Amino acid sequence: MPLDFVISPRSETLSSLLQTKIDQKTKPLGALGQLESLALQIGLCQNTLTPSLNKPCIIIFAGDHGIVEAGVSAYPQTVTAQMVANFLSGGAAISVFAKQHQLELLIVDAGVNADLASHPKLITAKIGKGTQNFLTHPAMTTEACTQALKAGAEQVLQQFNNGCNCIGFGEMGIGNTSSAALLMHCLTALPLAQCVGRGTGLNDDQLQHKLSVLQQALNQHNGLTQPLEVLATFGGFEIAMMVGAYLKAAECGMLIIVDGFIASTALLVASKLYPQVLDYCVFSHASNEQGHQALLDQFKAKALLNMDLRLGEGSGIALAYPLLQSAVVFLNEMSTFAEAGVDH
Amino acid sequence: MPLDFVISPRSETLSSLLQTKIDQKTKPLGALGQLESLALQIGLCQNTLTPSLNKPCIIIFAGDHGIVEAGVSAYPQTVTAQMVANFLSGGAAISVFAKQHQLELLIVDAGVNADLASHPKLITAKIGKGTQNFLTHPAMTTEACTQALKAGAEQVLQQFNNGCNCIGFGEMGIGNTSSAALLMHCLTALPLAQCVGRGTGLNDDQLQHKLSVLQQALNQHNGLTQPLEVLATFGGFEIAMMVGAYLKAAECGMLIIVDGFIASTALLVASKLYPQVLDYCVFSHASNEQGHQALLDQFKAKALLNMDLRLGEGSGIALAYPLLQSAVVFLNEMSTFAEAGVDH
Repeated sequence: MPLDFVISPRSETLSSLLQTKIDQKTKPLGALGQLESLALQIGLCQNTLTPSLNKPCIIIFAGDHGIVEAGVSAYPQTVTAQMVANFLSGGAAISVFAKQHQLELLIVDAGVNADLASHPKLITAKIGKGTQNFLTHPAMTTEACTQALKAGAEQVLQQFNNGCNCIGFGEMGIGNTSSAALLMHCLTALPLAQCVGRGTGLNDDQLQHKLSVLQQALNQHNGLTQPLEVLATFGGFEIAMMVGAYLKAAECGMLIIVDGFIASTALLVASKLYPQVLDYCVFSHASNEQGHQALLDQFKAKALLNMDLRLGEGSGIALAYPLLQSAVVFLNEMSTFAEAGVDH
Repeated sequence: MPLDFVISPRSETLSSLLQTKIDQKTKPLGALGQLESLALQIGLCQNTLTPSLNKPCIIIFAGDHGIVEAGVSAYPQTVTAQMVANFLSGGAAISVFAKQHQLELLIVDAGVNADLASHPKLITAKIGKGTQNFLTHPAMTTEACTQALKAGAEQVLQQFNNGCNCIGFGEMGIGNTSSAALLMHCLTALPLAQCVGRGTGLNDDQLQHKLSVLQQALNQHNGLTQPLEVLATFGGFEIAMMVGAYLKAAECGMLIIVDGFIASTALLVASKLYPQVLDYCVFSHASNEQGHQALLDQFKAKALLNMDLRLGEGSGIALAYPLLQSAVVFLNEMSTFAEAGVDH
């Protein structure tokens, strides 16, 4: 399954010029903390001293998971399609947050196990009606996985061609924390128990059951470490599309805002294929879902928000977006000491 | 110095209704984390199931400090007046962040050591041209302190009468981390070294000097613990005005957004006088300035942002404001499971 993304390492040549620009602003050195490193990163990604965030967009990939029949989720599979309808009608958390910050919100049917009614904001790219149950079969074929990667990349390219330079990816898929936990375990070698969390709200007994199901799945397909093989075996259609989306966004030089646990495991797969993808990523929040902080540590990332969110949908992206705007406005609009006539 | 604020304890009667409303939204229980407790708090402060943030406003109080002559700051005193001009001309960090979020920004000359040119957004309430050096005298008289408390309260009342129900207070005053450190030490009994930080960027030697100057000041005026006496002796005009501003805002039932270290020491004074003021407070960020986390612990508060900011000016208030908006929009605009037809 050859991949042909070309991701340039971020240009570092502007780094000292950007830092000088930041340091000349009317504030003590370093007083804007993490906002300063964010401004530096955005400038480097866009290779300019005057970055801007144009046509910011969130794409939610939705898909169903065969593993749900093993009782790993607190919610029934029907909720995936119902939540897609909720995104489209404007009633979900991500709907109201995207509206608050005027973020374009698109939903991609990556593989929901239902026939969805058409809608202007719904993009149909269904690979199948949910994945196979990975207790018995790989979640998807190699071909389906490739198809999903390409479909994710294609969605991003359309937004890029539309003038978008700042993008984030959300997901919806009942059961997908199980896929995410296995991707994390196989690609980080961290103990499975550290990668498995309560998802939408499992109690202690249910969490133990989930852990035991996922251990069985590992026994069934043991020793996988190759990223695309792990993705096809344990992933979901929405997760595979996110992998392609991350890679294409980085190839296009877009700034990428990363959501929570599942979004980060998709990025983990992408970064195992092309480590440079991480240069383009800003981490919106540290999720309350078990495993996410360890993933952030793998990425050597400090998230912008730490509010115990665990919702997915790209909700953390929307909540953190104003901080990216703030990084850009201080870099572009604040006066220097010289301009303002302030002693220092 | 009698004070006559009347701060009602926040109504708790709506608490269970608000929690039910939050729990019926289309998301797993608790999945919006700290945003849910924020929505609950805002609803309780406003005593409604449908809160709103009206005419949000930041008032910056500016004043100078006699202690600066002892060499406790990395910047000269002239910077206070220069930064006021920078706020007004739109070039400071708070200027660009307030503009980003359409927050009203007003500057109050509480006691800058300069004659400031008039400006539509500059309110003159000067108590004096800077405080006295508290190495030798109390920073201000009891009468001046009372006058400052009243002036701060008056500014808030004007905004309240103007329809504002959500307010935050910033400060500018070269030398004011020294005042703040002494207020914190006297009113929490935490060791002085834990309350004294690098301010605008002292190096190790300068920090040791600052600590030694502040220890001398404590020896000069020893054993003070009464809040208003501590405030008059070690405070600043801008800090005293903030104390009055907090108390009046709470009396008016306004939601208060608290900035960083200095703003929190003013709140500490206010809360020693009227503990109920804390019910109305949201903490925007955990500052990088030494001492702030310990102050937040005193308030049993978890800040919204933790970005190593240490700027003052109300900058943390502006950066955190969109999160308050998000709490309100999810509470008001998200669909319930029943409305959206989502199984749970």
